[in-house]
Order: sequence, then C-alpha cells, then structure tokens
Amino acid sequence: MKWPLGARSAGVHCGIKHKSADLGAIVFDRPVAWSGVFTTNAAAAAPVGWCRERTGVDVQAMVVNSGNANACTGAAGAMAVREVAEAVAGTLGCDPTEVLVASTGPIGVPLPVPKIVGSLPDLFRSLSGEVSDFARSIMTTDTTLKTVEVSAGPARLVGVAKGAAMIAPNMATMLAFLVTDAAVPGWELQEILAPAVERSFNRISIDACESTNDSVFLFSTGNAPYDPEALAAAVEAACLDLAHQIVSDAEGGTKVIEVFVTGARDEAHAVALARAVTASDLWRAAAHGGDPNWGRILSAMGAADRDLDISTVTISLGETTVFEHGEPRSVDASSVMSSDRILVSCALSAGDGSARFWCSDLSEEYVTLNAEVTT
Amino acid sequence: MKWPLGARSAGVHCGIKHKSADLGAIVFDRPVAWSGVFTTNAAAAAPVGWCRERTGVDVQAMVVNSGNANACTGAAGAMAVREVAEAVAGTLGCDPTEVLVASTGPIGVPLPVPKIVGSLPDLFRSLSGEVSDFARSIMTTDTTLKTVEVSAGPARLVGVAKGAAMIAPNMATMLAFLVTDAAVPGWELQEILAPAVERSFNRISIDACESTNDSVFLFSTGNAPYDPEALAAAVEAACLDLAHQIVSDAEGGTKVIEVFVTGARDEAHAVALARAVTASDLWRAAAHGGDPNWGRILSAMGAADRDLDISTVTISLGETTVFEHGEPRSVDASSVMSSDRILVSCALSAGDGSARFWCSDLSEEYVTLNAEVTT
Repeated sequence: MKWPLGARSAGVHCGIKHKSADLGAIVFDRPVAWSGVFTTNAAAAAPVGWCRERTGVDVQAMVVNSGNANACTGAAGAMAVREVAEAVAGTLGCDPTEVLVASTGPIGVPLPVPKIVGSLPDLFRSLSGEVSDFARSIMTTDTTLKTVEVSAGPARLVGVAKGAAMIAPNMATMLAFLVTDAAVPGWELQEILAPAVERSFNRISIDACESTNDSVFLFSTGNAPYDPEALAAAVEAACLDLAHQIVSDAEGGTKVIEVFVTGARDEAHAVALARAVTASDLWRAAAHGGDPNWGRILSAMGAADRDLDISTVTISLGETTVFEHGEPRSVDASSVMSSDRILVSCALSAGDGSARFWCSDLSEEYVTLNAEVTT
Repeated sequence: MKWPLGARSAGVHCGIKHKSADLGAIVFDRPVAWSGVFTTNAAAAAPVGWCRERTGVDVQAMVVNSGNANACTGAAGAMAVREVAEAVAGTLGCDPTEVLVASTGPIGVPLPVPKIVGSLPDLFRSLSGEVSDFARSIMTTDTTLKTVEVSAGPARLVGVAKGAAMIAPNMATMLAFLVTDAAVPGWELQEILAPAVERSFNRISIDACESTNDSVFLFSTGNAPYDPEALAAAVEAACLDLAHQIVSDAEGGTKVIEVFVTGARDEAHAVALARAVTASDLWRAAAHGGDPNWGRILSAMGAADRDLDISTVTISLGETTVFEHGEPRSVDASSVMSSDRILVSCALSAGDGSARFWCSDLSEEYVTLNAEVTT
C-alpha cells in the first residue's frame, strides 16, 4: 500500500525492543495541516502533551517509537520528547515545533533518547512511499499489520493503526495515523476527525482499560481535490475499519462481539449501555465459552442505568430473541454463541437513540499474557 | 456458632440444586425489627422488590434459596416470591407480609416454587439455634462458610454471608444476614446498617460486576440491652469481616489486594479512585503474575478522574514507593508482589479524603469458571 502523494515513511530497529522494528516516521514534502484526537486520561503520556501543544501548527514529520510509552515519566519524559523533536528537526531542517511525536510500550520507563537519535539517519535514508515498514515499526503485541485505504471522492485516504489491547504485556496502546491528499482547509480537519473517532475507536473495548497514550492523527498533504462529504465518509470508514482490525487482533481474543443498542433516550444513553455490556468480564467470559448467558447482559445494563425500565427491554443474540419486553423466553441461543462473530441487539423503548459498540471475548490467554512480569 | 437469643435457623436440600443444601430460613420467636440494603441495579431481582416493599414492617421469618436468582423472570418471578411468602406464612401462622425472601443463583430461570413449598415442613422441623446449616444452604460457588460473631457491648451480633464473585458459574450474588439481640429501636437499624455496608460490602470488588440480587439484612430480636456505639461498631466490624471473607474466597482468586487512597478531595473522590484501580483487569492480572506494574494503577486512576494532577501522586506497593510526586522511582517491588496480600497506597494532595477498597487478583481460573456453559 502506498501513501497519498506528498507523504513518505520508514520503519527501522533502533534498539528499544530486542529485535523487531521500533522506530518509524512519516515525513511530508512540505508542512501539512493535521488534526489529532488524544486520550483524556489524566496520566496522559509526555508525547501526547507535546502533540496537543502543536495544535494549529502545520507539521513536517511524525515520529513514533514502540517499546516505550514515555508515560508517567515525570519531567525527564517531557524533556525526552523535546530532544527527539529537536533531533528530527535538525535532520530535516525544520523547526522542532513542526515535529509530532508518539510513543507506545511500557509505562514508567525512561525513554532511551540516544537510541532514537542515533537511528534517525538510518530512518530517514529509508523513506519511501510504501506504508508497510512504518506500520510494522509501531506494532507491539499486534499479530497483524493494520492498514486501510479508502477512496475520498477525488482524493485518497490511507490509514495505519496499532493496538491489540489497551494494554499488552508491554502496556501497549492504540495509535492510528491517517493521511489524505485531499486539500482540506486545516480548520476543517478536526470537524471531520472528531466525530469519526467518536463512532469508531471510542466504540471498541478489549479490556475497558483506557491507555495513557491513545492518539489518532489525520494529515492532509493537499495534493488532490477536496470533496467534503466524500472525505468525511472516508475518514469514518477508515477509522471503523482500523478499529475493527484492533478488536479482531485483541490479546487472547477469539471472537468479536457487536453490541447494538436501539430505542435509547439518545445516542449517549445508547453508548453508555452498550459500553457497559462490552466492559462486563462476566459477559465476555460467557461469550468465550459459548454460553448464551443473557442475564449478564441485562445486569450490566441495569448497573449502568439504575432507572432502566427492564419491562421495555428486548435482547436478541443473533436472530434469536432471548428476553422480550421484560420476560425471559425459553429458547436455545447456543448455536449463535458458537460463532466467532456475535451480534447482541438490545432494544429499548425510551427514544430513538442508537449505537454500536464492539469488543472481544475474555479468555484465559488474555490473563496469562497480562500476568507476565514485564517491569 | 449460635444465633443471638430469639433467632433460630435451618438449611435443607429442596432440589433446586442437584445435591447440596439450597433452602434456608431464619425464624424469629416473635416479629422483629429489621433493616435492609439492596442492589441498586435496575434489573433487581423479584425478591429484592418484595423485601423493599416490606420496609418498616416487623418480620417473622427470612427464607433464602440458592441455585436460582429469580431475577429477570418477569411477572411470573414476582408471583413466585409471593407464593413462597404465603406458604411460609401459612406454616408459621403469620401474615405473608411478615416474611422476607432472598434468592441467589442463575438469572432468568423460573423459580421452582413447588420444590420450595414442598420442603418447608422439613425445613421448619430442623430449626435450631445453630448457624451452620443455614450458612451452608445459601452457598453457591463459595468454598468457605462465611460467618462472624462480634460483641456489641452488652449484646451479641452474629452474621452470615455468601459470595465468591458477583457472579459465579451460576450468576451467584452477595447476600448477608446479621442478627443482634440488642433491643434497637427499629428506626435506628437503617442508620446503623447503611454506613457499615457503604464501608464494607460496597468497597469490595471481584469482577466489578454488580449483581441483581445483592442484599444485606440486619435483624434485632430485642432480647439484650442496646448500646448504640457498641452496636454500630459491631455491625461495621461484622460487615467488614464478612466482606473480606468474600474477597478471600473470590472465584479463581489467589491474592487479596487492598487499595488505600489518601489525600483525596473527599471520601467520595477517594472511593472513586480506589474503585477504579480494583476494577482494572490489567492491574489485577499483573497482581496475579506478581508484576509490580504500577503504571496500570496510575492509568486506571487517570481514566477515573481526568482532572487528576499526577504530579501530586505518590504510589507505594507495600512499603516500597514506586512513584513519588509525579516521578517514577527505580526500585524493585517484586518481592511485595509475591505475597498473597498486597497493599497499594495512593497518596494525593487534594484534601483529606481517604478510603480503603479490597479486590482479588484476576486469574485464568476465573475466566475458565465463568466461561462454562450453564444456561
């Protein structure tokens, strides 16, 4: 897969991780407009703080390391981001404020800046229009390369993401990078990106654990015509596609569960109920075992909305209605549960709010992976 | 262990479960004052609704079945509770409104009323002052009998609880029954019970999944003098003791983790932060593996309070400070993590709010148990 015109990338091994690629960059032919959506975690990582401060400034490059989150690293962590940005700027001949930085990996470990700086010449020598080396360099416990290409009317949109759990053995995180060549006015980028992220990356859960480093970036190189509706649709489609790739590659995950809530008071209400179901360890463990244990769905919703009138609730697993207007139905939904894709539909009668949310099942392997001593 | 004077109990097998005791009762010599604290889940079980309606009415008996939660069972579920209460009242010669009912077990399965009613003669023939048969009859996946006796000044307080997860293979729940002989005015019981429950049962988590059936009852038989301070202290001590017994018997649990937050804005703030840490699958999995992965503690708190100033936060594992005023410390806390009791201290500088919260670790066995097909 090739980036849209005006963007090149590379990925190399700089030594943060033992063997695999751990340093990547996207470099633009000239400063480009961009927009970002970041974790709202109060323990947000140092690079997240750096990128937030760059809002509104066109950028020349995006540098990403894996194997170290540079989160909860105190004053030294903030200094490390600046040093990386300065080194990149020196190599490219731009200002450090024109360089974005993202990190992913274990929390609380000092970032080894010299390893990154020492590998920058090698990194920039490898730049090309090809996406894959960069996509590989940002992986942590991901087992699949996560890329997407969507047509945006007269322009192109290419995206790359990483994430296999909010946390991995290495406290991995979710990062995504989208590049379009559509000549979008900079101020419109956020209006396009924010709602797309809200309905994609913000609607997936692997373990309900928000990371300190989650970031989604959208860059516009401006080399192709801009069709607003087509681009907005393309960004949402690309975000959803990458979000689904993340859930499908969940640590220890064997199934993808879609929770579809309809008839809620409004969209926020639907999201809250769907999120509660996807956060339930009990329902996710039942799904793992193929148990159509819908009581765990209803108790999760009842805990999330204490005013929920369950006499109005209907729950279906796949096409099988297991609970209808407050009454259980004697049906066997076990065949639905044996699939590796499970649709949970929850219909209320409170309004016309609806939302879809996706999660993985909870397996013994997830626990084993995350019980490994890594710090 | 013997109940305080004025209370007798029994436990028998009525056939809801295959072999073990599944029907119990506490019967009082005369109608007694009582108080209850119940789940706030909107999908609260039928017996919870029945008991709530009895508030303020002295009661003659408390009947409990295990093996069936009678939750999400619709109109038939509410009728089933009434039928059980009527049968008990007929046997005892009291009014059905003087009979409390509690249930625990799988959700969404019709309650087999005839099995319960048919076993009432046997149950009431077995009544005695001994606690253990009753305590055994309310167990689901519990592996230990959970009882406590505390002196309440001139009076006694005896408590019994069940719970091994908010859910078990059978969607078990947490129930507790406390009986004192102190002659407490009825209207004071709730003032004693509610704060004790808030600081005990409401501060434990096994899987962060609230049940549809959680109930705590306090009965006063009135046969001994009442020392208000002594009884309040006794109720809180008994609730805490039973709560800790539940966490220690967590499904698949191998460790008990105490999270102690100090310096929060107020107690509610401290509770919210402590609760978030105990709800983190990632931290609980790390604890299971003995990994001092404090980044997972901080990211859980940062997600729970997006305005948390982490530069004021200090985290210790046991006696070892791993993160101090926003800066990581290079120390090895792995020896702390190998213990089966782990103290996590989180000190803020926002005020003088503090709270303690207890949880179990997250093991592969928990997933295995809850992935079993039971419905």
